[in-house]
Amino acid sequence: MEHFFKKHLMTHFNGFIAPVSDGVRVIERVTTRPRTDAECDAILTQGCLEMSNEELHFPEGRAPRMRSSVSRMAAASGMEWLKSVKGVILDMCGVLYDSGEGGGQAIPGSIEAVKRLMDSGLTVRFCTNETQSTREQFVQKLRVMGFDISVSHVFSPAPALVRILRERRLRPHLLVHDGLMAEFEGVDTSSPNCVVIGDAADKFSYQNLNEAFRVLIGQEKPLLFSLGRGRYYKETDGLKLDVGVFMTALEYAGDVQAEVVGKPAADFFGTVLKDMSLQPHEVVMIGDDLVNDVGGAQSCGMKGIQVRTGKYRPSDEQHASVRADAYMDDLAAAAHAILTSSPTTER
Amino acid sequence: MEHFFKKHLMTHFNGFIAPVSDGVRVIERVTTRPRTDAECDAILTQGCLEMSNEELHFPEGRAPRMRSSVSRMAAASGMEWLKSVKGVILDMCGVLYDSGEGGGQAIPGSIEAVKRLMDSGLTVRFCTNETQSTREQFVQKLRVMGFDISVSHVFSPAPALVRILRERRLRPHLLVHDGLMAEFEGVDTSSPNCVVIGDAADKFSYQNLNEAFRVLIGQEKPLLFSLGRGRYYKETDGLKLDVGVFMTALEYAGDVQAEVVGKPAADFFGTVLKDMSLQPHEVVMIGDDLVNDVGGAQSCGMKGIQVRTGKYRPSDEQHASVRADAYMDDLAAAAHAILTSSPTTER
Repeated sequence: MEHFFKKHLMTHFNGFIAPVSDGVRVIERVTTRPRTDAECDAILTQGCLEMSNEELHFPEGRAPRMRSSVSRMAAASGMEWLKSVKGVILDMCGVLYDSGEGGGQAIPGSIEAVKRLMDSGLTVRFCTNETQSTREQFVQKLRVMGFDISVSHVFSPAPALVRILRERRLRPHLLVHDGLMAEFEGVDTSSPNCVVIGDAADKFSYQNLNEAFRVLIGQEKPLLFSLGRGRYYKETDGLKLDVGVFMTALEYAGDVQAEVVGKPAADFFGTVLKDMSLQPHEVVMIGDDLVNDVGGAQSCGMKGIQVRTGKYRPSDEQHASVRADAYMDDLAAAAHAILTSSPTTER
Repeated sequence: MEHFFKKHLMTHFNGFIAPVSDGVRVIERVTTRPRTDAECDAILTQGCLEMSNEELHFPEGRAPRMRSSVSRMAAASGMEWLKSVKGVILDMCGVLYDSGEGGGQAIPGSIEAVKRLMDSGLTVRFCTNETQSTREQFVQKLRVMGFDISVSHVFSPAPALVRILRERRLRPHLLVHDGLMAEFEGVDTSSPNCVVIGDAADKFSYQNLNEAFRVLIGQEKPLLFSLGRGRYYKETDGLKLDVGVFMTALEYAGDVQAEVVGKPAADFFGTVLKDMSLQPHEVVMIGDDLVNDVGGAQSCGMKGIQVRTGKYRPSDEQHASVRADAYMDDLAAAAHAILTSSPTTER
């Protein structure tokens, strides 16, 4: 059924579709026909149309309508959905802290914001594509900055990938940061039959990329895993290229499509949701990466807030295909909005 | 008119279209309807259908036919077109020589083959995407190997790009091989407003890529020039990643589409054809790169021969969208085929 809706809506709206629990969410991108006033209002105030599955059975050419009076209110305020939030997934780099020399530094207000969210009764998890160190070392770094975070609440790509490698009996050639190598302890890397890349930073040398490419092209069916697909991230001394850039490079070189482990992969978000024991529509993801944090979460049926810290750029707010459910100045502002809206929370 | 044919044929054939002097050349990729026996024969023997502009006015659903008895003969032999060859463009690396330590080494038979082609009365030009040294140094290297080549007959991307930079008053940030820097002498590189990448090899470090990315993303309209778009090339010690891989990486990072200078850009081939004073259909390109040499030349209306040396891989002969007019074991074999077919040549 979902496929039918998707195809039907794409034909008529050419928009961005995100499934939600009781329908689909349509973020308009290109106008392919005149719209009704009501539709225009909804798009202007909310950036999207929401429709239940039932209402999607409209005949060809008939205009979709808003779902209910609640939706109309939501469209008017734009933030009504905050009331149903029971859980929060936090991106880390660019939201909690800016990375950089000496491990980076906390973003003002974020230590307190994390504490408020965790104390509120909301279920809070952390979801990072950080692959420069093991999860333990990474959490330790954040504790030193002042964040009170438990390792078991942090989800990162390397442990997820190690499970996949074991399940599929794969032997990786690893092009990852030295700090991450400990995650692969005990993984057989002899006679590699696939390539794994993470945010290897300075290890992304011409020589190492050539070596990974040769392993890849030497396989009958080249298999490339990428720990995330980010374009770039911000360190205290400037923007740095992220793993997605080198994933794209090797994809082009080897004529292969990488399997992404980490955000925005639906499997990865699914593991976090399962651990939270919550439904997607009860959870909001807060990140600085519009496509991988916000868009990825929305594709899974969650809400997504983009914060204007880290790698955020003003042009993100006019992105061609992804529109956040809200844009907030920083994590402190996002936490405040959630905590003053959600009935779950203790205020 | 050409646009109409292209659209019309794409609808019905979903194939690869290359304009030729008196029609278009259709290389079938995907079958979207049953074909007539005659069509199947033509595709099996020649890998393509040839139709004159007149015949392209067929009504919807009508099967295209072969153009004339000459075309039928061509379809039967598959090599009849060799008779009309008046000029030859030779790719260099992987056709004349394999690059590698100490400058590389000539491919057996190629020194003699070049000499035979040049002595035959055919117009011969050399077209390389080599950007690790200036044209003068590059030709000198080939002379040491034993090739008798004049600098004025060699076309490479850097001089073409320098013309573009001057015409458009651009100030490049250069990420190119040290050996190429002399080509940019006198070019203003202060306060760069565009990025130029060539085959920088070991200079493709994480740090240098970050630096190029920051220049790119700092522009209101990011502008990236790439000297070629090759995936990889073969050196004596193995395959090496080519500039196209890093072009793709920066395109992804900066959300920009590069302007390619060099093969397979039509402008670049056009300059060579003009220098030869020949029409595209009179010229054959010989290369080891199916997409950039053969496909690029075919897109300009030339014929293309892929040699099974250099970066050639057997899977090239089953490529999804590009099919060479002929596959030959090496340059010696290609030269022999041309010289024993073309009436222009002195045998």
